[in-house]
Amino acid sequence: MWFHTAQEVAGLLKAAELGQTVEKEEFEQTLPELRVELVNAQYDLQSAGFPVVILVSGDDQFAARTALRRMQEYMDGRYIGSNVFDRTSDEETRRPGYWRYWRQLPRKGRIGSYLNAWVSDLFRHKLDEDGGEKTLYRDLSHVKAFEQALVDDGTLLVKLWYHSPKAEFKKRIKRLEKKGQDWRVSPMDRLLLERYDEVVPLADEFLSETSTGQAPWYVIESTDERHSTLASARIIHSALRSRLDAPSPSPPPPVIGEIEANQTVLDTVDLSATLEKDEYRKRLNAAQASLREVSEEASEKGIACVLAFEGWDAAGKGGAIRRLTAAIDIRDFRVIPIAAPTEEEHAHHYLWRFWRHVPQNGKTVVFDRSWYGRVLVERVEGFAREDEWRRAYGEIRDFEEHLTEHGIVVLKFWLHIDAEEQLARFQAREQTAYKKYKITEEDYRNRDRWDAYVQAVNEMVRRTSTTDAPWHLVPANDKRHARVQVVETVAEALRARLGKG
Amino acid sequence: MWFHTAQEVAGLLKAAELGQTVEKEEFEQTLPELRVELVNAQYDLQSAGFPVVILVSGDDQFAARTALRRMQEYMDGRYIGSNVFDRTSDEETRRPGYWRYWRQLPRKGRIGSYLNAWVSDLFRHKLDEDGGEKTLYRDLSHVKAFEQALVDDGTLLVKLWYHSPKAEFKKRIKRLEKKGQDWRVSPMDRLLLERYDEVVPLADEFLSETSTGQAPWYVIESTDERHSTLASARIIHSALRSRLDAPSPSPPPPVIGEIEANQTVLDTVDLSATLEKDEYRKRLNAAQASLREVSEEASEKGIACVLAFEGWDAAGKGGAIRRLTAAIDIRDFRVIPIAAPTEEEHAHHYLWRFWRHVPQNGKTVVFDRSWYGRVLVERVEGFAREDEWRRAYGEIRDFEEHLTEHGIVVLKFWLHIDAEEQLARFQAREQTAYKKYKITEEDYRNRDRWDAYVQAVNEMVRRTSTTDAPWHLVPANDKRHARVQVVETVAEALRARLGKG
Repeated sequence: MWFHTAQEVAGLLKAAELGQTVEKEEFEQTLPELRVELVNAQYDLQSAGFPVVILVSGDDQFAARTALRRMQEYMDGRYIGSNVFDRTSDEETRRPGYWRYWRQLPRKGRIGSYLNAWVSDLFRHKLDEDGGEKTLYRDLSHVKAFEQALVDDGTLLVKLWYHSPKAEFKKRIKRLEKKGQDWRVSPMDRLLLERYDEVVPLADEFLSETSTGQAPWYVIESTDERHSTLASARIIHSALRSRLDAPSPSPPPPVIGEIEANQTVLDTVDLSATLEKDEYRKRLNAAQASLREVSEEASEKGIACVLAFEGWDAAGKGGAIRRLTAAIDIRDFRVIPIAAPTEEEHAHHYLWRFWRHVPQNGKTVVFDRSWYGRVLVERVEGFAREDEWRRAYGEIRDFEEHLTEHGIVVLKFWLHIDAEEQLARFQAREQTAYKKYKITEEDYRNRDRWDAYVQAVNEMVRRTSTTDAPWHLVPANDKRHARVQVVETVAEALRARLGKG
Repeated sequence: MWFHTAQEVAGLLKAAELGQTVEKEEFEQTLPELRVELVNAQYDLQSAGFPVVILVSGDDQFAARTALRRMQEYMDGRYIGSNVFDRTSDEETRRPGYWRYWRQLPRKGRIGSYLNAWVSDLFRHKLDEDGGEKTLYRDLSHVKAFEQALVDDGTLLVKLWYHSPKAEFKKRIKRLEKKGQDWRVSPMDRLLLERYDEVVPLADEFLSETSTGQAPWYVIESTDERHSTLASARIIHSALRSRLDAPSPSPPPPVIGEIEANQTVLDTVDLSATLEKDEYRKRLNAAQASLREVSEEASEKGIACVLAFEGWDAAGKGGAIRRLTAAIDIRDFRVIPIAAPTEEEHAHHYLWRFWRHVPQNGKTVVFDRSWYGRVLVERVEGFAREDEWRRAYGEIRDFEEHLTEHGIVVLKFWLHIDAEEQLARFQAREQTAYKKYKITEEDYRNRDRWDAYVQAVNEMVRRTSTTDAPWHLVPANDKRHARVQVVETVAEALRARLGKG
C-alpha cells in the first residue's frame, strides 16, 4: 500500500537534515572546475544520442528556483531548456494534462529542466479536498508509466528534491527581510511554510513511491545555499558523466514470444458484406447527416475525438477518411497522415509526435496510420527491437488512457481485406495514372509478410482493445460497405457519448 | 486612395461572372492527368527548396471549403498541410494576431494551405462597426508587408478567391436542401448570402488592393463545381510548375550603399561611467526590488515584454541578463539564447524562429542575441546577401510593430565596450577555466571587422529605433554600471507603461 499516515513514513526527508554547509573558500575553489566539467559533459552529450530531463522540485521552492537559475548560469544555455510549470494555459487545459510535459521534452543530445511538473500534479490532487483516492492512484500510475517510458527510451532522468527544516526556512525569510530583499520571497514560499507540516509528510510518501532504481530521487538539503548549489551541480554532473562513460548497453535478453494462435481475430471478420450503390448513397447520406449533427453538438460541448485508421495497404483508408471528414465542419477536424518520422520526430520518443497532435477540446484529429505502427510495421520489419515493441502495448494503453480520462472519444479502425482483393487493387491502381504513385516496391514486399502481419494485428487488437478505446474491425472487401460502417460507427459513438443512446 | 465606395469599384469580381461550366465527360478526361502532374510537382518541390502557401478564401465559402478538400484529396497528404482559421484560441489571442499565421508556415519543400487567414482579418475589421479607418490602414499595411516578406524570402504564394453570383448562390442552397443535404450548408454560408451586397464590393476592394505582380489574386467563378475544381487544380499546378521550371533567379543588381558616416551613434556613448561596489549593491537591489514590483503588476495586467540584447562579444550580456531575470518571477520569463539556426529553423523565413518565441500576455522573453543578427553578423560576415539584409530593416520594423500594437513592451539593448576593453576581457577569459569555452577563434576574427560592425550597428540603430521600440545604448566598460542601467531601464519602461510615471 502506498498510502501512509504521517507517522508511518520512513522519513526520507528527515534523514537528509544533516546540517551540511560549504565554506565560501571551498565553494570558490570547487565551482570553476565543476562548471567546466558540466559544460564539457553537455558537449559530449550532443553526440551521445540520448535526452536528459532534470526534474527540479521541493518543499523548499525558494531553493528549487535558485538551483534552476544556477544551472542555467553554469551550463551552456543553447543546449539546456528550462520549463516552469505553473497554472495551465488554455491550450493546455483543453488537452490531457500530460500534453504540456510531452510538448516540452528535449530532443536527443539536449537537456530539459522541469521546475515542478508532474510531481506538483500529485500534490494538487492530494491537497485538493475533492480529489479522492481513486484519482490519486490513477495519477501515480501515470507518473510511473511516464517516467518508465522515458527511461526505457533512453532518457537520463535526474530528479532533485530540495528540502529544508522548518526552522531554517523561517530564518531565511527573516534574513532576507532584514536585507531589504523580501521581494525575493514569493507568496508560494510563505504558503509552503504555513502548510509545512502537511506538505513534508506528503512529499516523503511521494518520493519513496516514485523513486526507482533507474530514476531515483536525490534529496538535497537546501538550508545552506552553497551546499545546495554544489550538491546539485555534482549530482547532475555525475549522473551525466557516468551515463556518457558507460559502455553501450548490451542488447536485452530475448523475450519468450507469443504462442501462435490458430484462430486470429481477423478470421472472425465477415468479408462477404456488400452494399448496392443506391442503398449505399442513401445510407451514407443518412450517416453523414447524423454525424454532422452529433459532431457539431460534441464540438460545442468541447468533446474531442481521436480516430486512428490502420489496415492493409489498399484497404481504402483514404476513401473512408474522406467520407467521414466530409461530414465534419472543416474548422473542426484535421487529418494527420503518418509517414516515416522527420528528423525532429526521430530525435524524440516515438509517442512524442502523436502527443503533438492531440486535439484540443471540441476538435477531431484523424490519424491516417498511427502509433500502432510501432507494433505493426516496426515490429514486422524489424525497425523496432523486440523489447521495444513489446513494451509498446503498455505505453499505448497508458497514452490512450490519458486521452479517454480527459474525455476524448478514442476509436480505432482496422480496415480488413483479404490477400486476393489486395492484389486485385494493386493491379487496378497501376492502371490508374494518378494512383500509381501510391504503389511502391515495398507494397509488394509487404505482401510476402502477410502472415507475420496477421499475427501482429491479432496481438495488437487483443492487447489494446479496451472498453474506453475499442478497436473496430471493418470488412473492406466492399468499399461502400466499409465507408458506411466507419461513418456510422463514429456517429454512434458520439451519439452515445452525448447520452443520446 | 484604396478606399472606394461600391460604385467606384472596378468590378474584378463581376468580371469573373462568365457562366463557365465543365461537362462531366471533359472533367473525367482531364482530371486524372492533372492529379498526376500535381503530385509530381509536389515531389519536385521537395528538392527545390522553397515553401508554397496556398491562400484559399472567397465570398463563396462553400466553394472555398470544397476546393480545399479537393486539393487535399488530389495531392499527397504527407507534404501538404491544411490550416483553417476561425476563432482564435486563447494561446493565440494572447499574442499578436499574426503569430498564428507564422506558427503554421510550411517549411521549404512543403505546401501549406490556409483557409481564410489574414484576408478574413480585413473583413472582420471592416465589418466591425468599432474598427475605424485607422485600424484598417494598419491592417492592410501588415497584409502587404507580410506577403512581401514571404515572397522576398522565396515563398510561392498562390491566392485563390471563390466567387459566385448571388442568384446562383441561392440556387445551390435550394438544390442541396432538396437532396436532403442541407447539413452541408453552414450558418456562415447563409450569413454571407444575407450580407452579399455588402461583402462583395468590400472583397473587390481588398482584392485589387492586395493583388501584386508577385502574388496576384486568382478569382475563380465557383457556380459550377467541376469548373471550379479544375480551375483551382490548374492554377496551382501551373504556378508550381512555372516556378519549378524557372531558371534560378539572377542575383539582384548591386545596391548603392550607405555613405559612411564620420560620426556614428556609438561615438556618443560615454564609456567612462563607473559605479563603486557599495553604490552598485545598493542601486542594484533597489532597481531589482522596483522591477519585481512593476513586473508582477504588469504580469497580472497581461502586459508582456520582449527584451533584445545585442552587443560586442564579451560586453557582458549574460551577466546583465542574469541580474535582470533575478528580479522577475521564474514563472514569468524565459531566456532564449540565439545561436546558429537549427535545421528546422533554417528551412523557414529568418523571422519565423523569433515569432515562435513571442511571449503570451503577461510573460517576458529575453533574447540573448536576436533578429538583429540579420543586419549585424549576417551582414558583416556575408551570410545574408545585400538585398536580404537591406530589406530586413523594414521587415524588422513591421515585426516589432506587430508586437507593440498588441501591447507588448519592446526594448532593445546594445551593450557597448571599446576594442581595448574587449581584448582585456578575452585575455581574462582565457585565464578562467569555465569561461574558456566561450572563446573561439571566431571571436578574435570578429575583432578584425570592428569597423564594419560599427558601421552596421550605426545603421541598425538609425533605421530601427522607434518611439515604441527604442534602442538603448548601454556603456558597458564598467559591468556594474551596465547591469544597473539595464535593470533600471526595464523597470522604468514598465513603470511608464503602467501609468506610474
